[in-house]
Amino acid sequence: MKREKALAIVEKQLKKKRYEHTVRVMETAIKLAEHYSGNIQKAEQAAIFHDYAKYRSPEEMRRWVIEEGLPHDLLEYGDELLHGPVGSVMIEREVGIKDPEVQSAIYYHTTGKQQMSLLEKIIFIADYVEPGRIFPGVEEVRVMAFQDIDNACWMAARNTIRFLMEHEQPVYPDTFHLYNEKLMNKK
Amino acid sequence: MKREKALAIVEKQLKKKRYEHTVRVMETAIKLAEHYSGNIQKAEQAAIFHDYAKYRSPEEMRRWVIEEGLPHDLLEYGDELLHGPVGSVMIEREVGIKDPEVQSAIYYHTTGKQQMSLLEKIIFIADYVEPGRIFPGVEEVRVMAFQDIDNACWMAARNTIRFLMEHEQPVYPDTFHLYNEKLMNKK
Repeated sequence: MKREKALAIVEKQLKKKRYEHTVRVMETAIKLAEHYSGNIQKAEQAAIFHDYAKYRSPEEMRRWVIEEGLPHDLLEYGDELLHGPVGSVMIEREVGIKDPEVQSAIYYHTTGKQQMSLLEKIIFIADYVEPGRIFPGVEEVRVMAFQDIDNACWMAARNTIRFLMEHEQPVYPDTFHLYNEKLMNKK
Repeated sequence: MKREKALAIVEKQLKKKRYEHTVRVMETAIKLAEHYSGNIQKAEQAAIFHDYAKYRSPEEMRRWVIEEGLPHDLLEYGDELLHGPVGSVMIEREVGIKDPEVQSAIYYHTTGKQQMSLLEKIIFIADYVEPGRIFPGVEEVRVMAFQDIDNACWMAARNTIRFLMEHEQPVYPDTFHLYNEKLMNKK
């Protein structure tokens, strides 16, 4: 699918600010794919569609989780987690995108996980460091993204866990597993 | 086993400061067991023996993990984690204490876990808040220990995860499962 067509599809699903974020994630993901010799077309497509499900209602997303047989523990960790896994299925059903690599990168873009593929890392990090993101610690990850993407993933997981704990929110286990895995690989 | 005999056995295994800590954990555990109508004898015994393996060498503890068929992932999270699980087996082999409730409380006293029994919670918290413990956040947990022991467990798990992350240490999964479980039960 051509970039313009993909962007037009996604634009209809998103609020203006979120669409602009998506374009920046796409640009960042392409730069990362170039830098790490990844698949640029897949990085572009996964980035464009990563927030496809973002503005569906929690009720609709929960229905997708159940009807598509996604892990039910997703329902216990707050609605913010749902749009990745649900979006990865929705784009197949509604847009006809059937590419397990792209879909998996969308699935895990919020939580991360252990043993991420390069494409999964690119989307996870592009979403975290795109230039519109401004929050404590982001600059350090932005720099690390182009030096050592695994370490950048570790930093992003660590910052996310810290943030969630400060706000007394549960932490999806995949994020902890990512934190532990990358830390152990560093040592 | 009488308290004096148990303490004498443990005193031989520990350095003086650690033995004094053990006595304070025992006193705290008994108070908690009284407060929550738990089994005072078991709380006393588990507290006395909770650090039994503390001064065995990492090599010896690793050997116990492998030979006793304890979960091998224990070996990946730093030696500090080993003395609980190993001690729970050692006291059976070396002292003849065979009480699954007591042994489980010793096993999990460092990491905690989901769905802890009252005795497990008492030892986990007594070890964390005994009056010799002085570190940021302990006083809040010390007060909560006698108000809502589940919330105290959550606080201790949260503080432990924070501490480990600040020091770039891995977090054993049982600890974050405890964090998530108690948080979800609060809500």
